[in-house]
Amino acid sequence: MGATVPETKWWGWGDTARARSLESLPELRAFLRQALDLPDTVEPLRVPDAESIRLPPTHLAAGDADALRDLLGRDAVSDAPMERLRHACGKGYRDLVRLRLGDVAAAPDLVLFPGSEADVGKVLAFCAERGVAVVPFGGGTSVVGGVEVSDPSRPHATLDLRRMARLLQVDGTSLTATAEAGIFGPALEAQLAAQGVGLGHFPQSFEYSTLGGWIASRSTGAFSNRYGKIEDLVVDVRLLAPTGVHDLRGRPRHAMGPDLVALAVGSEGTLGVITRATVRVHRTPEARKFESVLFPGFEQGLEALRGMAQEGMSPDLAYLDDEDETRLSVAAAGGSKTATALLRLRGITLDRASLAYFGYEGSRESVSRRFGLGRSYWRPGVAAGPGPAERWMESRFVTPYVRDSLIEHRVLVDTVETAALWSNVERVHAAVRRAFHAAVAAVGVPGWIGCHVSHIYSEGASLYFTFMARQRRGEELTQYDAVKRAVTRAILDGGGQLSHHHGIGSEHAPYFREAIGDENWRLLRELKRTLDPRGIMNPGKIFPVGA
Amino acid sequence: MGATVPETKWWGWGDTARARSLESLPELRAFLRQALDLPDTVEPLRVPDAESIRLPPTHLAAGDADALRDLLGRDAVSDAPMERLRHACGKGYRDLVRLRLGDVAAAPDLVLFPGSEADVGKVLAFCAERGVAVVPFGGGTSVVGGVEVSDPSRPHATLDLRRMARLLQVDGTSLTATAEAGIFGPALEAQLAAQGVGLGHFPQSFEYSTLGGWIASRSTGAFSNRYGKIEDLVVDVRLLAPTGVHDLRGRPRHAMGPDLVALAVGSEGTLGVITRATVRVHRTPEARKFESVLFPGFEQGLEALRGMAQEGMSPDLAYLDDEDETRLSVAAAGGSKTATALLRLRGITLDRASLAYFGYEGSRESVSRRFGLGRSYWRPGVAAGPGPAERWMESRFVTPYVRDSLIEHRVLVDTVETAALWSNVERVHAAVRRAFHAAVAAVGVPGWIGCHVSHIYSEGASLYFTFMARQRRGEELTQYDAVKRAVTRAILDGGGQLSHHHGIGSEHAPYFREAIGDENWRLLRELKRTLDPRGIMNPGKIFPVGA
Repeated sequence: MGATVPETKWWGWGDTARARSLESLPELRAFLRQALDLPDTVEPLRVPDAESIRLPPTHLAAGDADALRDLLGRDAVSDAPMERLRHACGKGYRDLVRLRLGDVAAAPDLVLFPGSEADVGKVLAFCAERGVAVVPFGGGTSVVGGVEVSDPSRPHATLDLRRMARLLQVDGTSLTATAEAGIFGPALEAQLAAQGVGLGHFPQSFEYSTLGGWIASRSTGAFSNRYGKIEDLVVDVRLLAPTGVHDLRGRPRHAMGPDLVALAVGSEGTLGVITRATVRVHRTPEARKFESVLFPGFEQGLEALRGMAQEGMSPDLAYLDDEDETRLSVAAAGGSKTATALLRLRGITLDRASLAYFGYEGSRESVSRRFGLGRSYWRPGVAAGPGPAERWMESRFVTPYVRDSLIEHRVLVDTVETAALWSNVERVHAAVRRAFHAAVAAVGVPGWIGCHVSHIYSEGASLYFTFMARQRRGEELTQYDAVKRAVTRAILDGGGQLSHHHGIGSEHAPYFREAIGDENWRLLRELKRTLDPRGIMNPGKIFPVGA
Repeated sequence: MGATVPETKWWGWGDTARARSLESLPELRAFLRQALDLPDTVEPLRVPDAESIRLPPTHLAAGDADALRDLLGRDAVSDAPMERLRHACGKGYRDLVRLRLGDVAAAPDLVLFPGSEADVGKVLAFCAERGVAVVPFGGGTSVVGGVEVSDPSRPHATLDLRRMARLLQVDGTSLTATAEAGIFGPALEAQLAAQGVGLGHFPQSFEYSTLGGWIASRSTGAFSNRYGKIEDLVVDVRLLAPTGVHDLRGRPRHAMGPDLVALAVGSEGTLGVITRATVRVHRTPEARKFESVLFPGFEQGLEALRGMAQEGMSPDLAYLDDEDETRLSVAAAGGSKTATALLRLRGITLDRASLAYFGYEGSRESVSRRFGLGRSYWRPGVAAGPGPAERWMESRFVTPYVRDSLIEHRVLVDTVETAALWSNVERVHAAVRRAFHAAVAAVGVPGWIGCHVSHIYSEGASLYFTFMARQRRGEELTQYDAVKRAVTRAILDGGGQLSHHHGIGSEHAPYFREAIGDENWRLLRELKRTLDPRGIMNPGKIFPVGA
């Protein structure tokens, strides 16, 4: 079976045929007008013609492109401006604003489409020899600058893995599946479903991201409490480093020295190219069941989540909005008279409530029993039925389209995420909010920040912040940098992880050494030197350029 | 709180005051007489006087011992023959036979008892400077040659961590605990229990092994299906490498590059000294419940375990004897008329049955519900009540004492363990049995081999083999080497892991490169060079001497 590659926008999120404008969401628009003091009309930040964007001239030595065409075939090598543009950056706020501003200071000189591991091997050998940097590219949905050209002084070839997208094997007895790294989420799940199994890894980027990208960036999906982060799902990985082919075997468990699979997971293209992986799969669930609960406050919701996580009773999906994000969710849904009435009975103010979604899947019996057991943890809150949770599930993949429209309306909108021990979750939450509000005040615009927990562990939880503010025209990027710097500083100073599932990329690279400590940083640097002695693999990611 | 160090035998397992002779187990003795064709009487392989054992002369340069005494204090440095002997080897069959034969060709020149991380740092700096090899030593229960002196041409200092055994902190909100690496299992659990929590890690060596040893060797405990292997319990690790101090932070989860905690877990003292760790703990369970089940055969038992593992219904403890190990268990228990009668009702022959033990712990409600759900998986078998499982739990920590007596009776007795994907479990099981029987036949003695599964995963399971044969006098070690070589070869050729939870040590080191592949082996070798450029850390473990 061949690749199924979604046709996507070069300038924004996802499917060219799909859009969700702010105009189509009057309640959200009203909420933001108030929260961000948005003007009634604004001159849109429009998408320019692709042809009008000036790409930097090529850095490649004469003959290198032709040599690569000889190695891979003509149709596997492109220097067309449209391909260079499409592979110039990821899908973070910074990326999408730069594209709209026509500010593409760096782009790969070539885009390569290898069809096999042999092709990848040839590319790595050639590029090591010629000093050409290689950027592995899956779906290109990085929001931390993971696929951009960070060192414009060097020639770059981006390695788009979309042609390496076969499901290679399903072991129905061991419940494992082996696939090439370039397979996209929907194609993988569809082919697995045809064999009665599934991976169950649904990051928000699911439709436009790949197996290899998930592994390279340590991604996490909606049902993570059941299936784990991608590192929990990985059995084996093949990593093609410039120095050789690493077949990393992890499962079933072993006591054979340090776990080397763990070096490939999260390597973000800096150690080599992940070309294939074997992952755990599970039989297609018989049933799914959701519930929505309004807690009297975020603190009470956190207590419920912690109780469930620490007593082995985590719902497969557990999602908890803080008070601000709840207000946004309720407003965007057009408010809810029923919810308000229900809450009043229990003395909960909707304005201070904290909204949670819980989801279960598996056999009918398991879903029904676990759902029943979950109830005792929700008791401090008011159950609001499956509706809001189901609507949230449906709308998850739509939200990034709304972001495109917000940017067009000149709204600064981004997310940062972290994870903290339970004893530290509320402190990090408060610190990030404080830092954000101070930062937007310094910039001189009103801002809004909300947060949710979406992944829980016995020792702690993730915190996912969404923030918005009015763009200052002409200062779009400096304003963003100031805000992002402030919230990142608050996370690190508060003891949170630099990232829980977005990764480091180039955007967090300046903080990486501080986050993991000098000695560990040096160790990882040496590890990179061992696997990539010429330093061709994805320069500027994880390690800043020149580090 | 200070260290609680059990007083142990230098020549055998565990407590000097505890023993379990073969004479006290007439049913087992009768079984082995038949299975191994043991003679009625045998001249015992006795334990020699410790004083009669000649230790090799010291390799230390003049002044080095005094310099270390100046650094650490006089009472923290010993070159007493008894300390050297106690730290000369682990507790494998090969070790215990060599001790009885008085064959101690290699022993550490000094035993050091550091009291703090500062002490460990001083030792590493001094030994790197002076070219003295350092062997980290926890409980010394390695059965794969993990703490011996593998390169007798170099001076060695063994670093016994028993004085670094404090429980440092319990975070009751995040359910984590931080302790020094030298703390022994019972002391750790007792101190945690006083705070209402527990770690739940119970390897068979539990009474005589340490937190640091568990992490260094990737150990696994009885309730692994609930709490995981030690790598699942580790939150943070501090690793003192010769090049610096690594504070490795793993939890809650992150997307901050490769997982470096995974490099310390399983490093077996070859990269540095693990001095402290933070681990996940859980609230003390309210209830425990066991069941014993006789399946019509091993194959049917495996199917039941796989079903439970793949449907998220694993008992916290799941243990399944193959037919041969079942025959031994039933015989050693003096047979069971009730069991035989029960089985006949269901058409199961006791002689071909496969005995399983299941255990659950947690809240009363959770235990009772999960126990109820488990029943449907046991249906192909016959439930035999909690008795056999409870007796097995009680006898687990006694079995190694029986081994001492078997060795005294000149029985070759050892275990090898592996893990395989479910699609490969039966093949590996058959291959190891075949290889063992061919090997003992070649040596010319009757042999017995049994196997059990004790750790299950959705993709596969562990296989733990116990084998016995008559010792050939004067050839005790060569005979053992031949058998061990044959079963290890069968494991590797069959696609099993070189070890599931015993580790590599020196005994599996010759196979390590083949097991993980050339490229991975070179990578790990470079990693060691980075952290330990002078090659002082535990030479000959994981990597063969001179590799």
